[in-house]
Amino acid sequence: MHLKSWGYKMKVIVYGYGLMGKKVANKVRSQSGMDLTAVISYEFDEKIPEKSFNSLKECVEKADVIIDFSHPNNLDDILSYALENKTKLVIATTGYSTEQLAKINDASKQIPIFQSYNTSYGVQMVTKILRQVAKEFYEADYDIEILEKHHNQKIDAPSGTAKLLYEVIEEEIGETTPIYDRSALHEKRTHDQVGIQAMRGGTIFGEHTVMFAGIDEIIEIKHTALSKEVFVQGAISAAYALKDKEKGLYTLKTLY
Amino acid sequence: MHLKSWGYKMKVIVYGYGLMGKKVANKVRSQSGMDLTAVISYEFDEKIPEKSFNSLKECVEKADVIIDFSHPNNLDDILSYALENKTKLVIATTGYSTEQLAKINDASKQIPIFQSYNTSYGVQMVTKILRQVAKEFYEADYDIEILEKHHNQKIDAPSGTAKLLYEVIEEEIGETTPIYDRSALHEKRTHDQVGIQAMRGGTIFGEHTVMFAGIDEIIEIKHTALSKEVFVQGAISAAYALKDKEKGLYTLKTLY
Amino acid sequence: MHLKSWGYKMKVIVYGYGLMGKKVANKVRSQSGMDLTAVISYEFDEKIPEKSFNSLKECVEKADVIIDFSHPNNLDDILSYALENKTKLVIATTGYSTEQLAKINDASKQIPIFQSYNTSYGVQMVTKILRQVAKEFYEADYDIEILEKHHNQKIDAPSGTAKLLYEVIEEEIGETTPIYDRSALHEKRTHDQVGIQAMRGGTIFGEHTVMFAGIDEIIEIKHTALSKEVFVQGAISAAYALKDKEKGLYTLKTLY
Amino acid sequence: MHLKSWGYKMKVIVYGYGLMGKKVANKVRSQSGMDLTAVISYEFDEKIPEKSFNSLKECVEKADVIIDFSHPNNLDDILSYALENKTKLVIATTGYSTEQLAKINDASKQIPIFQSYNTSYGVQMVTKILRQVAKEFYEADYDIEILEKHHNQKIDAPSGTAKLLYEVIEEEIGETTPIYDRSALHEKRTHDQVGIQAMRGGTIFGEHTVMFAGIDEIIEIKHTALSKEVFVQGAISAAYALKDKEKGLYTLKTLY
Repeated sequence: MHLKSWGYKMKVIVYGYGLMGKKVANKVRSQSGMDLTAVISYEFDEKIPEKSFNSLKECVEKADVIIDFSHPNNLDDILSYALENKTKLVIATTGYSTEQLAKINDASKQIPIFQSYNTSYGVQMVTKILRQVAKEFYEADYDIEILEKHHNQKIDAPSGTAKLLYEVIEEEIGETTPIYDRSALHEKRTHDQVGIQAMRGGTIFGEHTVMFAGIDEIIEIKHTALSKEVFVQGAISAAYALKDKEKGLYTLKTLY
Repeated sequence: MHLKSWGYKMKVIVYGYGLMGKKVANKVRSQSGMDLTAVISYEFDEKIPEKSFNSLKECVEKADVIIDFSHPNNLDDILSYALENKTKLVIATTGYSTEQLAKINDASKQIPIFQSYNTSYGVQMVTKILRQVAKEFYEADYDIEILEKHHNQKIDAPSGTAKLLYEVIEEEIGETTPIYDRSALHEKRTHDQVGIQAMRGGTIFGEHTVMFAGIDEIIEIKHTALSKEVFVQGAISAAYALKDKEKGLYTLKTLY
Repeated sequence: MHLKSWGYKMKVIVYGYGLMGKKVANKVRSQSGMDLTAVISYEFDEKIPEKSFNSLKECVEKADVIIDFSHPNNLDDILSYALENKTKLVIATTGYSTEQLAKINDASKQIPIFQSYNTSYGVQMVTKILRQVAKEFYEADYDIEILEKHHNQKIDAPSGTAKLLYEVIEEEIGETTPIYDRSALHEKRTHDQVGIQAMRGGTIFGEHTVMFAGIDEIIEIKHTALSKEVFVQGAISAAYALKDKEKGLYTLKTLY
Repeated sequence: MHLKSWGYKMKVIVYGYGLMGKKVANKVRSQSGMDLTAVISYEFDEKIPEKSFNSLKECVEKADVIIDFSHPNNLDDILSYALENKTKLVIATTGYSTEQLAKINDASKQIPIFQSYNTSYGVQMVTKILRQVAKEFYEADYDIEILEKHHNQKIDAPSGTAKLLYEVIEEEIGETTPIYDRSALHEKRTHDQVGIQAMRGGTIFGEHTVMFAGIDEIIEIKHTALSKEVFVQGAISAAYALKDKEKGLYTLKTLY
């Protein structure tokens, strides 16, 4: 495992006990470096072996970190508890409004918060590689394009992760332009363009490829997720990584 | 070689002596089943070992087939000669106007003409596979998407070949809708949609993938061109295939 | 769904209630065209809502078909029941000895049996495509190679499915030679060779690619499994397909 | 272009005037930062506009660097001239014996020599990425595998470039074991194994993929060469990079 354990066991509250919440709780239970202090679930579930509460308002337990895979509606409950108790936050829930994202940002002036739409270790590594090579490829006249594939139930396009990868590239190069629809243009590609294409079908969990295409050479960096498990593992890793962090808003781009 | 030779040598006129025309002429020269009767080139080139003419108006030679890799402007010259002499035509030039395509169609009522924007053997085989399985996959609830990649000098998107593949799928299924830009929609994919995505970069000769995505299974059929050579070979194969054909307009979808 | 229902509900016994057996049982429960008559499980499991038995010897229920995802040791129990009651068989268990495969073959002289190491619909479609194009590609001088990828717990290599794909190719072409290790040869590839390569890592469920490589063109047909679910669905489909079949041993190559 | 020019024009001798030698000579001719001083070719070719000689023994011209794309047999001629004149060397010829490689190594104690079996910029970038992430992936329990594809005329397997990629991985991790043939083993993969698989077919110029496979995540880094042009460009880049280098034996791993 890439996570080193240490003597102290991190106390964790898991917020949400749906499909993802259960997976996170199980993962925390299996970590030698973590204790599952409590579970917050709006439904009473007699099978939860730990203490459980309907909301953090009722929760009498203290913890080092809250991992949230629940619903945007719970944000106020989470933030008021976390600010009062100085509890670190891993927020893996998606779909927040702009106002809610601003509230998260405000709270991060007092406590460390990790918030990301893709918590996987692999995507984190891809962003690390992009930081190292994107600018060099670009200056060597390589064109850059992004492709993502997801299941047929996904509403947004391109994916949050594709946007994240584009942002990393944009930050490194400083002069790129995203292109979503080439069929609407009738002109040659310019070097500053970064095409971002989305494919949808079946039950694909998530594929992201960054392509660098030069003169008779192509380099592709591809990430494939084979299950939702990767997001569970990513949240656990983020919780560990927050351990020694000061207040602030962290993302995959800044946490590791 | 997959082409069987026969006793008689096919007489071939190559129209155009640019990058592609030269390659076609060389290929004809190396075929045991073909004779290169003449080359038509608007520039005098003393290195052409065969008889050469500025246009077919001046050409006194007869042939079984003309292979054209020149320019849309030469269409009238080609058609008037071919109609007068009942010469078969392989037209691999691209960029015709709608009016010109109508002229080709008219001429095909008297002589056999092959006209296609992608003459490669491999693409022909992909269309053959699609004819066999596209409808069955669709009815088994597999979503269908098309991806193509080309070099950064290509102006149109999606490519003519991607359109060809879509048309084959559409003909087989009968109720599909092409989608070029998912970022403009904010809704789940419907089953009748066929996404067609285009990537551009470097010197990529041409890649086309048709993806069938179902419940936890993906089948992809991918064609990669590694040079323009494949289009030369495709034109030669089409010339052979026209040998026993009656008048009519043939494409990859109907020739083989 | 690609499976048409009909008035009569097929009576199904599921043999095995491990990881895969439970998935199959759940799938049968959700089919409008099937009834789950009984479950055979050597462990008593009070959560099974249907009648359950330790073995078929004890089973008093009759069924149209038995779907087996258990262990090779149960073969005798299955065959003696099926032969006595003329019950159709879908055998998805793997790891049989040569002797056991002979017993299955003998039994198929009296009842219809489907037995395959890969029951997925997608792999079935890939074999269908291979039957159509493998020989034609080979005669057009395209070289054929197979690549498979699986998780790091898999013991055998190449996979049963890769062998199945090779066998289809071999049957179509009639003169191929499988090559597993090119590092041991120091000579050019001959056209009759079919390389079969295996990659292992992580939790990959299963990827199989058949590559046809010609002069400057490559066609690849790739199947990706995203979960074990596909094998469950494949077994259900096979059960339906056996409905109108006579005695005989069926595989993916002959069932559909 | 990623190569910066400077005031001085580098004097270059191109050794070999076959397929690759001609391409290199043309590329040197088109470089504003280079002068093609002479060409060494065993065949008299009246079309060479520069001075040409049968061997370096007869060559009266001086140069900054020799780029060699000829034959192992010419090694002695090259080394004796280079050592006498302190000329830098870019050796892109392949197929040297162990003794010859030792001679190259000896000579590098007096002059700067770049010697590599793959001179492409893209492969150089892939090795750079591997240096950054291979160990981290390995320690995070990701399994590593290498796949390469080449044309059907290639005799050796795995390719020199695949070996190069493995060596980089091995140097970073320090405890890996290469595996060429999984069909010969009947056991689970151990974490230290690095599978290296070779596929052969058609006219594939060269594809190399390094796969990192973890729990439900796969990261792939893939390099595709679309022509031999990339090796020409790589040799030119190496010549420029040698400009300020001291004596020593450089490879893609150490030159940039």
